[in-house]
Amino acid sequence: MHVTSEQRLDDGVLERTFTLGEIPGILWTPAAASASAPVPLILLGHPPLGLGRMYPRLVARARHSAAEGIATATIELPGSGDRPRWPAADRARAELRRALAAGEPVTDEIIDALILPLVERAVPEWQAALDAVLALPEIGGPVGYSGGVISIGVRLAAVEPRIMAAGLFAGSFVPRAMFEEARRVTIPLHVLLQWDDEGNDRQAALDLFDAFGSAEKALHANMGGHTGVPEFAADAAGRFFSRHLK
Amino acid sequence: MHVTSEQRLDDGVLERTFTLGEIPGILWTPAAASASAPVPLILLGHPPLGLGRMYPRLVARARHSAAEGIATATIELPGSGDRPRWPAADRARAELRRALAAGEPVTDEIIDALILPLVERAVPEWQAALDAVLALPEIGGPVGYSGGVISIGVRLAAVEPRIMAAGLFAGSFVPRAMFEEARRVTIPLHVLLQWDDEGNDRQAALDLFDAFGSAEKALHANMGGHTGVPEFAADAAGRFFSRHLK
Repeated sequence: MHVTSEQRLDDGVLERTFTLGEIPGILWTPAAASASAPVPLILLGHPPLGLGRMYPRLVARARHSAAEGIATATIELPGSGDRPRWPAADRARAELRRALAAGEPVTDEIIDALILPLVERAVPEWQAALDAVLALPEIGGPVGYSGGVISIGVRLAAVEPRIMAAGLFAGSFVPRAMFEEARRVTIPLHVLLQWDDEGNDRQAALDLFDAFGSAEKALHANMGGHTGVPEFAADAAGRFFSRHLK
Repeated sequence: MHVTSEQRLDDGVLERTFTLGEIPGILWTPAAASASAPVPLILLGHPPLGLGRMYPRLVARARHSAAEGIATATIELPGSGDRPRWPAADRARAELRRALAAGEPVTDEIIDALILPLVERAVPEWQAALDAVLALPEIGGPVGYSGGVISIGVRLAAVEPRIMAAGLFAGSFVPRAMFEEARRVTIPLHVLLQWDDEGNDRQAALDLFDAFGSAEKALHANMGGHTGVPEFAADAAGRFFSRHLK
């Protein structure tokens, strides 16, 4: 992990950009975090639109967590932002756009091609980022995962034992294989669903929520469209993490 | 409204029992409520099991609201508790029990007979209770409605303009006629659904949530069975009312 820039935001949050091999990332730590007072960590997931484009929303979530005494970290997804193009991912996205434009159904084949390779490549990268960030003396854990492509969150929740709680955003296509994987998830879950998210398959989101094996799982459905998660819903997600990570 | 008893609970909450004609009720006000500092009000709904049996859960909700500076009031449902038996309601309940015991489907006819007359009789009573309680100088409004038989809440939310926000518990049978009524509800809603409530029709609850016309509506689904609403879910409902009534 190579720190490439470091700045204090106005609220005292320390923002460091880094690279992990070829992967860019950002780490935010609360002002008070130190080796003698290490803090919990939330991995901030995001859609594959590039960290640059996602930065405003990510830093808002980071400040929110920092105010609760929790550090946050995120890395670029494969094929996104400044990372090398990924022709297979580009083809899968083009195929999705073509089907949507033609008014055709989004088939399992399209969804699998879009999501499964992304999960396969991204999850080990997030685990490597976790190794690197947890090696810092001011980051102590426990660790949560929040948002982004829900299938990446499901896989991480299922396979990464250091993740103790996950906040998932049910706003992207879910390959059928993920429903089986969801049954193996047992950590506390907080699932956000935008009820009136027209591009989203609401029934698939409900089925996925039903499939999770967790004894504690909460679904919060709200209005406001795909990007219109109400502030009170973000606050509720924050309280979920505070309850489980602090 | 005739006050029949009055006591201070250990946290300073004033508990008054009253009768409104033949209908018994209870009113809880925060210690600090006064004519010069009137407080908001939440009507506490409950299932038709009698106020005596429901008292422990009702007083817990009342104390929770009082700590937020909100008064609460409840009245006995027709045919329940110490009120005169209601043969038609008893027959409808017996018919439901018979169908359940025989493993038969709970038909629309059974649900209508069980719920619609209860809504028809209860709603004007709750409106009369609202008249009486709002006449007290220490109760100022705004008014919320919380919990109990969801169809009573839906009707009140649709027809009673003084109710500004409703927290509904999706845990009882919903007559088909209520889905149409739900479309006319436009106030902010916070709907609790116990996802693993085996006796409850989850799909009907989701359909009802979908039907509400409110621009702000939130569905919070949790685990824990019919009576096992997690404490954090009760807290979230409390925050919903604080946001809208204070």
